[in-house]
Amino acid sequence: MRFLGSCLIGLLVVGLAASASAAMLGFRDADTQLATEQAFKTRLRSEDQANWARSLTARPHHAGSPQGQANVAFIAQAFESWGFEVDVETFDILLPFPLERELELLAPTSFTASLIEDIVTGDESSAQRDEVLPPYNAFSIDGEVTAELVFVNYGIPEDYELLERYGIDVTGKIVIAKYGRSWRGIKPKLAAEKGAIGTLIYSDPGDDGYAAGDVYPDGPWKNASGVQRGSVMDMPLYPGDVLTPGKPAIKGTRRLKQDQAPTITKIPVLPISYRDAQPLLAALGGEVVPPEWRGGLPITYHLGPGPARVRLKLEFDWQRIEIRNVVARWPGSEFPDEWVLRGNHHDGWNHGAADPISGLVALMSEAKALAGLAKAGQPPRRTVVYAAWDAEEPGLIGSTEWVEKHLKTLDEKAVVYVNTDGNSRGFPSLGGSHTLEPFFNEVANAVTDPQTGVSVAERLRAVISTGEDAERRADLESREDLRLNPLGSGSDYTPFLQHAGIASANLAFGGEGNGGSYHTLYDTYEHYTRFRDPGFVYGVTLSELAGIATLRMANADVLPFRFSGLVDNLQTYLEEITELAETERAAAERVNTLLVSGKYELALDPQKTLGPPRAQPPVPHFNFAPLQNALADLTAVATQLDASLDSNLTPTELVAVNRMLFRSERQLTSVDGLPGRDWYTHQIYAPGFYTGYGVKTLPRVREAIEAQLYEDVDIQIAKTAATLAEFTNYLRDLAELLAEK
Amino acid sequence: MRFLGSCLIGLLVVGLAASASAAMLGFRDADTQLATEQAFKTRLRSEDQANWARSLTARPHHAGSPQGQANVAFIAQAFESWGFEVDVETFDILLPFPLERELELLAPTSFTASLIEDIVTGDESSAQRDEVLPPYNAFSIDGEVTAELVFVNYGIPEDYELLERYGIDVTGKIVIAKYGRSWRGIKPKLAAEKGAIGTLIYSDPGDDGYAAGDVYPDGPWKNASGVQRGSVMDMPLYPGDVLTPGKPAIKGTRRLKQDQAPTITKIPVLPISYRDAQPLLAALGGEVVPPEWRGGLPITYHLGPGPARVRLKLEFDWQRIEIRNVVARWPGSEFPDEWVLRGNHHDGWNHGAADPISGLVALMSEAKALAGLAKAGQPPRRTVVYAAWDAEEPGLIGSTEWVEKHLKTLDEKAVVYVNTDGNSRGFPSLGGSHTLEPFFNEVANAVTDPQTGVSVAERLRAVISTGEDAERRADLESREDLRLNPLGSGSDYTPFLQHAGIASANLAFGGEGNGGSYHTLYDTYEHYTRFRDPGFVYGVTLSELAGIATLRMANADVLPFRFSGLVDNLQTYLEEITELAETERAAAERVNTLLVSGKYELALDPQKTLGPPRAQPPVPHFNFAPLQNALADLTAVATQLDASLDSNLTPTELVAVNRMLFRSERQLTSVDGLPGRDWYTHQIYAPGFYTGYGVKTLPRVREAIEAQLYEDVDIQIAKTAATLAEFTNYLRDLAELLAEK
Repeated sequence: MRFLGSCLIGLLVVGLAASASAAMLGFRDADTQLATEQAFKTRLRSEDQANWARSLTARPHHAGSPQGQANVAFIAQAFESWGFEVDVETFDILLPFPLERELELLAPTSFTASLIEDIVTGDESSAQRDEVLPPYNAFSIDGEVTAELVFVNYGIPEDYELLERYGIDVTGKIVIAKYGRSWRGIKPKLAAEKGAIGTLIYSDPGDDGYAAGDVYPDGPWKNASGVQRGSVMDMPLYPGDVLTPGKPAIKGTRRLKQDQAPTITKIPVLPISYRDAQPLLAALGGEVVPPEWRGGLPITYHLGPGPARVRLKLEFDWQRIEIRNVVARWPGSEFPDEWVLRGNHHDGWNHGAADPISGLVALMSEAKALAGLAKAGQPPRRTVVYAAWDAEEPGLIGSTEWVEKHLKTLDEKAVVYVNTDGNSRGFPSLGGSHTLEPFFNEVANAVTDPQTGVSVAERLRAVISTGEDAERRADLESREDLRLNPLGSGSDYTPFLQHAGIASANLAFGGEGNGGSYHTLYDTYEHYTRFRDPGFVYGVTLSELAGIATLRMANADVLPFRFSGLVDNLQTYLEEITELAETERAAAERVNTLLVSGKYELALDPQKTLGPPRAQPPVPHFNFAPLQNALADLTAVATQLDASLDSNLTPTELVAVNRMLFRSERQLTSVDGLPGRDWYTHQIYAPGFYTGYGVKTLPRVREAIEAQLYEDVDIQIAKTAATLAEFTNYLRDLAELLAEK
Repeated sequence: MRFLGSCLIGLLVVGLAASASAAMLGFRDADTQLATEQAFKTRLRSEDQANWARSLTARPHHAGSPQGQANVAFIAQAFESWGFEVDVETFDILLPFPLERELELLAPTSFTASLIEDIVTGDESSAQRDEVLPPYNAFSIDGEVTAELVFVNYGIPEDYELLERYGIDVTGKIVIAKYGRSWRGIKPKLAAEKGAIGTLIYSDPGDDGYAAGDVYPDGPWKNASGVQRGSVMDMPLYPGDVLTPGKPAIKGTRRLKQDQAPTITKIPVLPISYRDAQPLLAALGGEVVPPEWRGGLPITYHLGPGPARVRLKLEFDWQRIEIRNVVARWPGSEFPDEWVLRGNHHDGWNHGAADPISGLVALMSEAKALAGLAKAGQPPRRTVVYAAWDAEEPGLIGSTEWVEKHLKTLDEKAVVYVNTDGNSRGFPSLGGSHTLEPFFNEVANAVTDPQTGVSVAERLRAVISTGEDAERRADLESREDLRLNPLGSGSDYTPFLQHAGIASANLAFGGEGNGGSYHTLYDTYEHYTRFRDPGFVYGVTLSELAGIATLRMANADVLPFRFSGLVDNLQTYLEEITELAETERAAAERVNTLLVSGKYELALDPQKTLGPPRAQPPVPHFNFAPLQNALADLTAVATQLDASLDSNLTPTELVAVNRMLFRSERQLTSVDGLPGRDWYTHQIYAPGFYTGYGVKTLPRVREAIEAQLYEDVDIQIAKTAATLAEFTNYLRDLAELLAEK
């Protein structure tokens, strides 16, 4: 028996040496998988995507809307028809709907903002008025404020530093900020911290309007009436239902009182069009803005404050509504308790053609093809979960509540989360956990660009090679893999990656189907199919990219996690923050020296109000050694581990190794979370506390330096190093386990 | 007798060791000179400048106008009244005056350009219509052309390279270009070379209009109707009368036929306002311009060609007119045959308050004060010549013809030429021959900034120190002297420096009295005194700066030429062109490699017309050794010479040494001139053949590399090195003469 047992085990050993015919990370038999992928590709239909998109974008389908509910039924029904086990999981969340929106210029002239978007010829969807959500920012507080106006450029920290040099204090004022340079929710957050009592946000045509290109309907760009809606909840604190941080918004969960919800803004905020912004900006006096603050309106921009005086009134209907995620499972044939998750939200701001339906129909194509393969005898070895999230737009609510509800199960079972959202014609955008960097490079090499016939990876390489960024070009040539972009926030991967510690990716195409329809009334089927991806050609390409990633993760023998690329990226981040400290130190020394010398007073125009910058706290030298040492240890272990992942393993060992592999990302989290925001547990990737969507890698250290909390920096270095050390120990255990083979 | 003679000579020996009380380059007795300068300063009156400016700007005073003639009489009379010997020297030149100017958009819509500038409230001068020159470009050829329009950005070489990538050929088209990035005359020159049949030039509000600041009359910037006039004669070939290159336009000089004058444009060209440009630009189709080509109009900019179709008709009255330079001399009390020249033009485009009257009244102040001192017993030791040039605006004509007429005398006698032109509130702009770099630093240290109370040099240092240009900051701290800007062209120093080889300087204040009045109807007394230099405060400061320079040059014992600073600047220029060659080589290699790899085809949007760049000729390695060796030799000699200029010299020796010093700049010229333009003899400084005003240092070599005439580069290096070697030999002779002391 014993001999026989050994023999049987021997026969079952999975050999991962490169096959003669094709090599694929994690596969013994790449040819079979390649054949599966080929069969998968032939099942993808752009006509399906076009038809589904037409249905799903027929009417506005924001969270809680009748069409949103109809879409949920449509999606669920589709998945059921393909043979999936489908749950519609509901949550009970707080969501504000606009009741009153008033904006007036009271002085020196009077003007009432229209706050509506024009009906345009050739786009019937834009004529929709009954079900449409007018321009507003979700999770603005109610309020009525009247005050002088101040122009704050993009409303980011450096803009307020410059205003201070002009002697301008926004206390008691209403600020008007351009969209851009930060996630929108940062603008009212920072304005409130600076004492402002209201915020207006507008898309300047210099960034997003006629300067960029022909405006809708002549071209894809934002016309004078277009307004970007969007959430302003304080997502860098925590996303999801504002009343249930860290907990699912279900029956039995204790809820915060609305007036204690910390992620609702402190001051009212309203987004407006550049047509509505122009009279307000033109009415500002005070100094002319510095050159780098100019926008594209045909006026001279001034800082204020006043004489423009503005009244802003906002009132919302704060409803408790039911939101509905569609969650469809195809059980794995061999490893049903290992889940490969693939998601895209279904709610839009209005018709939501690009955002999110273009990504959702790509996901549906994948699911239909995978189901077809499964029914034809090629089921996924692991369980594949397709999710269509609700209420992403107001604050990643559907996905966040779902992750919070299923946290324990996900911790056990989630192998990976692959997200998509909007899509358009162009090049691949590859974001994700760097343990999957070689994997996604292989996947991008396996997908053909429909316009050029080369792989999408090769096309992206060509874009970088022919581009103007010399540093990026040199980096491309210095390593084998294209870099994955580290993930900040802005879509549903956030709860998976940054709360649950699940290795995640965010995939899209773009760069050639640009435009200004994002979150406007004009994100319609008409706009999308004219300008962004006519014929859903890149819709199918996205299905191939995300679908092959999903299939490979579902079918791999040894899961394709690798660690040397992560180390290389971490090294880069450490170099960045080391350099950041040096740059800030030199800048502070320069400013302080110049202040002492009195040179600013000599250089500055005495007839202008611009004064010298304030004195800077000196930047001490930090002890980066713990991070350097932690990275050195990790490098050694990662190298060893990556090499030994080719070992032959028994099925039992394989399950254990795979479990350790997919749970490795969990080790990069800390139960303490990040300073001041414990919902965010990941210690490598986080959205910026004062930038929002923009990623901050090694966030404890980077943000302590940026916020000039210099006394904390060494502590944050040590804590981050400790997380890395635990991660290294975890990988060492795995490496030792493999080394015994 | 012999003994006595020796004794007398011994008594008269001029010792230049630093005095205990004050050191001043070239003076044994700095205290006396300082006292003279103090007395000079107290004689300067801002009220004088205001009064003269009011008279001189009362009516338009372009070359050949009645008010221009009245101004000549006014200026001559003033100089005579102060005791100068005054000549009004006339020349007989060709000058075109506009008869017909018509510009129409014929398709796809129709529009007729107004081509007039608005009368604005608060500026009576702007109501002038009878004597005013309407917007036009002097020395445009006559013509009537009808063609499709193409937008060419700034109309500089790199813009045409990009148009070629878009597959756009301007042959047979009319081009419209923004003002800026090159001297205006380059735009029709290059357009014609590319096959265009007409050129429109306009000031884009993104560069010069509401984007920069409040527009006139609310603020100083260009309003929608304002148009920059200006000459478009091919001045980089030769300036001055178009019919008499290199010769004075006087009786007996053989003249070219008008249709053979090479500096008249090949195609008609007209400057227009942004109000007139907008309908034309808005009517263009074709691709949207690349982001860096966008302007500030509230439209989407397209490249064309067409469907905008334009008719342009220009007809000029080509008159032979008399122009009049006022030349006023104060004979030197000791060295009457050593001339210190000081000039500013008197003709304006219209009222010409800033340009040129603000500079001219500063010059008049200086002259009045110098005459006062002279009459009070402190005459200049050298002859001082004050000149008010005519017809600078159409092409440096008055000064050029004068230099051409007096070339031999100037070669013998001219010590230095100090030029001014427009002035305004702010910081000093110090341009000039680098043999005078230490001298002008001393002068700038001796003049107090009226707003801050420090020297104008110190204020400029503070501006650089607090500025964003890190390289310039580092450079400032690496050497004792502020750098002089090398001189290109754009004012009357050009014939002195670049044709006659006379050490020259160009001085102004600016940076805080900005605005868009340049060459418009709005360069008026009203505009100037509201926005540019209220109270002529910096007018007096300019008088101090240029006046002290003039007085020191007039009174110095040993002329304050020094050579180490020149060597340092030459070294910088050599490094620049060496780096230019390397940069161009790397760029060509990169483009060619990418072309071979086919990466452009992969990267570029197949739905757009932008194609790959054309293949570049490979950039060979050049032999810079002759220049490096020449500079090494020069360094040694310059160091020795600078040290020995402190020697004690007899009066006779002094005259000989001074003559060699002031004629040293002549040795930097070559009778061959520059390739293709023998009028320009200076081998170190020249205006760019394809940039115009912008300087090209070491022009033979730099322009050969820029024009990709790679086979010529080593030849140009050798020729430039030969000039430097002759210069070194000349200085060596002087050094040896001094070493014997």
